[in-house]
Amino acid sequence: MKLTARIEQLPLHDKFTISRGSTEVSETVIVELTKDGVVGRGEALPISYYGLGPTETQARLEALGPWLSRQDPWAFRPLLEEVSARSDGDSSVVCALDLALHDWVGKKLGTPLYRWLGLRPHPLPETSFTIGIDSVENMVEKLRRASSLPIIKVKLGTDRDLEIITALRRETSATLRVDANCGWTPRETIEKSHALAALGVEFIEQPLAAEALDDMEEVFAHSALPLFADENSVGPADVPQLCGRFHGINIKLVKCGGIRPALRMIDLARMFDLKIMLGCMVESSLAITAAAHLAPLVDYLDLDGPLLVAKDPFRGVEYEGAKLRLPSGPGLGVEPR
Amino acid sequence: MKLTARIEQLPLHDKFTISRGSTEVSETVIVELTKDGVVGRGEALPISYYGLGPTETQARLEALGPWLSRQDPWAFRPLLEEVSARSDGDSSVVCALDLALHDWVGKKLGTPLYRWLGLRPHPLPETSFTIGIDSVENMVEKLRRASSLPIIKVKLGTDRDLEIITALRRETSATLRVDANCGWTPRETIEKSHALAALGVEFIEQPLAAEALDDMEEVFAHSALPLFADENSVGPADVPQLCGRFHGINIKLVKCGGIRPALRMIDLARMFDLKIMLGCMVESSLAITAAAHLAPLVDYLDLDGPLLVAKDPFRGVEYEGAKLRLPSGPGLGVEPR
Repeated sequence: MKLTARIEQLPLHDKFTISRGSTEVSETVIVELTKDGVVGRGEALPISYYGLGPTETQARLEALGPWLSRQDPWAFRPLLEEVSARSDGDSSVVCALDLALHDWVGKKLGTPLYRWLGLRPHPLPETSFTIGIDSVENMVEKLRRASSLPIIKVKLGTDRDLEIITALRRETSATLRVDANCGWTPRETIEKSHALAALGVEFIEQPLAAEALDDMEEVFAHSALPLFADENSVGPADVPQLCGRFHGINIKLVKCGGIRPALRMIDLARMFDLKIMLGCMVESSLAITAAAHLAPLVDYLDLDGPLLVAKDPFRGVEYEGAKLRLPSGPGLGVEPR
Repeated sequence: MKLTARIEQLPLHDKFTISRGSTEVSETVIVELTKDGVVGRGEALPISYYGLGPTETQARLEALGPWLSRQDPWAFRPLLEEVSARSDGDSSVVCALDLALHDWVGKKLGTPLYRWLGLRPHPLPETSFTIGIDSVENMVEKLRRASSLPIIKVKLGTDRDLEIITALRRETSATLRVDANCGWTPRETIEKSHALAALGVEFIEQPLAAEALDDMEEVFAHSALPLFADENSVGPADVPQLCGRFHGINIKLVKCGGIRPALRMIDLARMFDLKIMLGCMVESSLAITAAAHLAPLVDYLDLDGPLLVAKDPFRGVEYEGAKLRLPSGPGLGVEPR
């Protein structure tokens, strides 16, 4: 098994701002595992929140190459546990290799990932489309350009949150979801939840800092809207402690380490009666398509990466407005453009 | 997809007695799902403990036939959830169809189940061999006949438990494990644990009745030996509450409902830091081979079904003493003899 890794620039249609910062180009790392003439591809978006850059991620992947060259990709389950141990728990690295191994095995089996996992490719939930933080006027303008889409996720965590949602609601009858990305206090969350409920918002994502998990008990008791964890739902071990603090979780492959841990989070969330959203970073169609194969298992989709990226190096899941269609090719079903 | 179900008699080498009762013939239900010329086979041992007999299990399976005939076996994951809902949570019925669907899909994929699940077929833990309750003399005689086997599981829950283990220990230096099948009280368990530890016993399985789960906290605090749950670890939902009450769990496919829930129990047990034993009922090589495909994921094996059965209608996993060798055929790799 031969490993190569490279950095890809993903220029965005619009500058994308959340409560933590802005980006105009997303830099992602593409890994390829080749064996027996079959190429398995994975993607690792370095999570800047955790302080890692693409060069470091690429180097970490390449450092695993000599060891991986002696491994059997069929035994991906123990192999990925060893990858996790060898990469210092870096979930981007584990995710890239998890995706590449699932792609490789799926191609060898000659079957799309969703089928190999025993899933029906439809119906799938419709995806939300995300509007980043900007001036109220610019956010309204972005909403107008997305007027055909039925579900809008709005990044909040500003001093004008209610003004933004009021202005957007005046423009649209679309479903609105909000994501504070850790930008609020407990009291602020409870107060805003009532105002946002009155504006017809569906739910709130990650209002408090991840460290403030205990404060979520009070927020949970008094919120007028359902609460979804994101920075608080990184991997499987986080899920049991979210009971009584959140109503649902956002699962992102690059946070948890790929398909395998995402499946474990889905099983755990069902067991603990939590709703499930499947989310993404600003990634290419490679990582998004991998996530989309799990879409039959979840309640909500936030897989708008390919809609935000102006130049996508891959072709995979296809969009018709907010509806996703899974590719029928083997493995992830993703091909370079 | 066409379903047939039949009852198979499994005559035993020896009458088999546990603390709840005796059996000389195990009656099991074999189900076959046929589609596109491929037959997927599953097995449902009716669990007498839960009050169901083979005729009722066969009838329940046959009643699902017309509905199943319209379903797509590839989508086994949602399909098995629907089976569970339609069969009143009868885990034997769900297990039979879970195994048959995994066999069918694996045959269509042309790959053995362990490989499709991403597992290495070796090394595997060695299996224990079970000696049922009998007179001390007869148990010693059965041990002599099993003298080549390195791990012996002894059924206890009698008025002569320590006498039995003392007599067996005098005969052998093999690893000894004991299973009280709910036959002890909390105080009795703590006292016997010290005596059994002195006799070199490795661990104790299910000392108390399943209803006495809360009493396990005190037993856990004072036991001289690790404690494994069996009647208390039926399905995935049981696992989180075993923390601080048991050191490990015994997973049996027919209790939990097959491969899918067993995988969920394995993930949960790892997460809650519980050891895992994979066990069986007195089943044919069909059900035992299905379990054996999960053996790479567990710490202890108790898969001695085919060693207890005198006439096994199937050929699958092979035994060399206590060592198992997984079959290399597609799906479960099981064929009728």
